[in-house]
Amino acid sequence: MQIFVNNPDFIVEDMLKGFAAAHPEVMLSPLNERVVILKDKKEKVGIITGGGSGHEPAFLGYVGEGMLDAVAIGEIFASPPAQAFLDAMIEADNGQGVACLFGNYAGDNMNVKMAIQMAEDEDIEVKYVVATDDIASSPKETREKRHGIAGGYFMWKVGGAKAASGATLDEVIEVAQKVVDRTRSICVGVRPCTIPAVGTPNFLIDEGTMEFGTGHHGETGIEKKALGTADEIAGEMTEAILTDFDFDENRKLAVMISGLGSTMLMEQYVICGEVLAILKEQGHQVEKVYVGNFVTSLDMGGLSLTIVDLDAEITQLLEADGQATGLKNY
Amino acid sequence: MQIFVNNPDFIVEDMLKGFAAAHPEVMLSPLNERVVILKDKKEKVGIITGGGSGHEPAFLGYVGEGMLDAVAIGEIFASPPAQAFLDAMIEADNGQGVACLFGNYAGDNMNVKMAIQMAEDEDIEVKYVVATDDIASSPKETREKRHGIAGGYFMWKVGGAKAASGATLDEVIEVAQKVVDRTRSICVGVRPCTIPAVGTPNFLIDEGTMEFGTGHHGETGIEKKALGTADEIAGEMTEAILTDFDFDENRKLAVMISGLGSTMLMEQYVICGEVLAILKEQGHQVEKVYVGNFVTSLDMGGLSLTIVDLDAEITQLLEADGQATGLKNY
Repeated sequence: MQIFVNNPDFIVEDMLKGFAAAHPEVMLSPLNERVVILKDKKEKVGIITGGGSGHEPAFLGYVGEGMLDAVAIGEIFASPPAQAFLDAMIEADNGQGVACLFGNYAGDNMNVKMAIQMAEDEDIEVKYVVATDDIASSPKETREKRHGIAGGYFMWKVGGAKAASGATLDEVIEVAQKVVDRTRSICVGVRPCTIPAVGTPNFLIDEGTMEFGTGHHGETGIEKKALGTADEIAGEMTEAILTDFDFDENRKLAVMISGLGSTMLMEQYVICGEVLAILKEQGHQVEKVYVGNFVTSLDMGGLSLTIVDLDAEITQLLEADGQATGLKNY
Repeated sequence: MQIFVNNPDFIVEDMLKGFAAAHPEVMLSPLNERVVILKDKKEKVGIITGGGSGHEPAFLGYVGEGMLDAVAIGEIFASPPAQAFLDAMIEADNGQGVACLFGNYAGDNMNVKMAIQMAEDEDIEVKYVVATDDIASSPKETREKRHGIAGGYFMWKVGGAKAASGATLDEVIEVAQKVVDRTRSICVGVRPCTIPAVGTPNFLIDEGTMEFGTGHHGETGIEKKALGTADEIAGEMTEAILTDFDFDENRKLAVMISGLGSTMLMEQYVICGEVLAILKEQGHQVEKVYVGNFVTSLDMGGLSLTIVDLDAEITQLLEADGQATGLKNY
């Protein structure tokens, strides 16, 4: 395995040590070394998330002012235990309650709900919103069963900015739920990923094919297709999302292309160019564009497309000040 | 080849189209479609660079307010022609001269110098600084022959911030040269890269080995070594740079870990943690840390370590406002 690692069983610990050393704004919680917290605690509703590792910069990279206050970190592709979510809640609480904004996966769902019960005993009020942007993971009729992928970024940014503005817990939950309801993603995989402690790819993608609608943990896509040109793939992804939205008029949109780990930025811009051209041609107005690795799947080859149906409030919150520690590149 | 591409011979064009569509602050120059420019031209010394594609987000991602005004884009791993550098100079000039801050490679050197002669005929004053941070590419005695790699970021940020402050061309050149003189990098490769139009790796790295001191275009390293643990590699990289600096006292430093393309952020933080621990143990004070893909080599596996010997002026300019369009992630 040609990667930079000490003991693969402890790669998450080593990453956390490096992350905390690199970013003085954050630290590992004294309560729990698997919880990353923002040092400067503000008088406001706390915002937390959590999930398995292997999706960097998610989730820890979104700890920052105007974004997340605390994050529970799991092993690779595994939910953090309920105790870690609880410790993140305790760290983030300031007496005004905590919004837990997480992606829809069975383990996270179970552990968050257990942690919320435990938090009640500590007199911490916690409400939650579940990101369900991945349109490939369940049909539209059962939208609540869909997984959360890169679209979670928008929930965190908007929820975080709302909390920073002094909003109540209910107001934060309301706007985070609104963003979730207006966000759709689709993912295409072209090369598998390898869990360091395993050392071999966790699934296979045949040369000349792609997994259309793949998940972020090697979940099979909704369809194995011949690998088309970038323009063809961009067209299929955009159409899948627009069909799911089923807009009856032209909209103001945000577009995110997120690489899955080993996909070149050059490829991401090629896809982005065609997505934007299609949306423009159909009369939509794209107001914000994000290109880069926002939510990854280890070293997987592929990318996700996320489209957000903006309104004035969401746009304003996306543009509000916010520091994503792990994305702070200059 | 499992990547997102239309015709591999036109991947650079397609990337530029997507980049300009994604970032409304920039456009392709009406003079030359291989020159990316900042739309909002300020009354100040112009800052440009240029080089081959395949190093994204360099170079085009560093066009932005307080950074670069124009960038000449070459084919993959190939210098832009002199005419592209000239057109970038014309676009960036505002009557106060242009600083061309580029990385030391034979083709770029030749074409920049030709462009400077051509610019004289247009009454544009151009001075240049050449990044030479890669300590593996030539011995210390012939430091001027070294290549420029991720350390170029610091030259662009500091030079760009100095120009934005209203400095003269000579002042910009002086501070950019100072940063170059105080910056050292070393790169380790663990997996080769593939030029899309070729379709097969341009060199090989045997399983269980690494190229210590590899370049950003598949140049062989100074030594083929057994692939050690992350801590061992971090130690060897840090020692190589500190030996080259040969400090006689403790220093204030900036540290950058730049992934080469397909190296996971998780791995980068593992290496970063150990580098920071070593520097701290040796009594140095690390004031700024950068982790991410700053200058890449297509889909290569590996990373570079860059260390900058800070002074008060450099630190202040690194912290000055500056927008890197292609790094703007939130």
